[in-house]
Amino acid sequence: MGIRDLMRTRPRGTMEHADATRRQVRYAVAMSLDGYIAGPNGEFDWIVTDPDIDFGAVFKEFDTLLIGRKTYEMMREHSGPEMPGVTTFVISRTLQQTDCVGATVARDPVALLESIRKKPGKDIWLFGGGSLFRSLLDLCLVDTVEVAIVPILLGRGIPLLPSHAAQAKLRLLKHEVYPKTGTVSLKYAVVRAGQAV
Amino acid sequence: MGIRDLMRTRPRGTMEHADATRRQVRYAVAMSLDGYIAGPNGEFDWIVTDPDIDFGAVFKEFDTLLIGRKTYEMMREHSGPEMPGVTTFVISRTLQQTDCVGATVARDPVALLESIRKKPGKDIWLFGGGSLFRSLLDLCLVDTVEVAIVPILLGRGIPLLPSHAAQAKLRLLKHEVYPKTGTVSLKYAVVRAGQAV
Repeated sequence: MGIRDLMRTRPRGTMEHADATRRQVRYAVAMSLDGYIAGPNGEFDWIVTDPDIDFGAVFKEFDTLLIGRKTYEMMREHSGPEMPGVTTFVISRTLQQTDCVGATVARDPVALLESIRKKPGKDIWLFGGGSLFRSLLDLCLVDTVEVAIVPILLGRGIPLLPSHAAQAKLRLLKHEVYPKTGTVSLKYAVVRAGQAV
Repeated sequence: MGIRDLMRTRPRGTMEHADATRRQVRYAVAMSLDGYIAGPNGEFDWIVTDPDIDFGAVFKEFDTLLIGRKTYEMMREHSGPEMPGVTTFVISRTLQQTDCVGATVARDPVALLESIRKKPGKDIWLFGGGSLFRSLLDLCLVDTVEVAIVPILLGRGIPLLPSHAAQAKLRLLKHEVYPKTGTVSLKYAVVRAGQAV
């Protein structure tokens, strides 16, 4: 157990003020330069996988997946590879738990995240679902926005952030350019009200 | 006169096959991370100007401004500073030349660009106006897309590329990160059909 893990198990009252050690909600997605995370029908075929991106290392930072109903239904349809050791939560007002295999349905993201964060663990991957991102952003529940910009203009599709969302300032934390494919990885912290940019 | 200028004055037949020396049409704009180039009412107040961006050097690369009607009307309303030594063309089907001060109205962008490129000169700045970008992209008339990504999620506004545009592959040519503001500058070539990515 490292220092980071030890700090994560400190009493919750202390963790509230220790953002760096709190389990982060990270919206991490691939995006076209014109701001789409998928084609109009959820297509991912435009995403070029750069051989120098270490996905294994990325996956190791997460143990929880947070998705919306649409993403859940798409994943179920494509029966894509599940991530071993990862707990999946679907935020939905309409889905029933009995309809869900391999995932836990939750109605209230605030209560869910509070409960997740009571336990020590890794970060929480907010995956796909621009609509869920908008809801959680409005609730100040997103810590970072991490986009891998794929060199393409899609022209149409599912936006990173659906229109009519509230404005949110960001702070650039990290950048990485992958020359083989021209993918540009950018990691931003969401700057909440009252925080300095 | 440098080698680049000399090459630009070569006969047109030769220039057609010498893309590197042809006067480029460059769509260069500031963009929010969620893909907007302006707020819903054309607002620019979210654009943070990084002190390390050398705008003087950028302006020196252009002598021609290509804008759409909406951008022209906005510029006229705000009576912003004109760029000395720069010729402005407005692409519009409805504007009359007699209504236009300090700009030349053109109906057909293909004929206009052909005529501009017959003369030696600097690059052509396609400025603002996501709709004009979409039209010129469809006509394969845009050489580069250059975005300065401002660390903000606007949530709504005028998109970099309005929806229902055709897909276009890009090739990353250059990147620059400005740490004082977190602005990320990316320059892409538009990859036309038949060209290798």
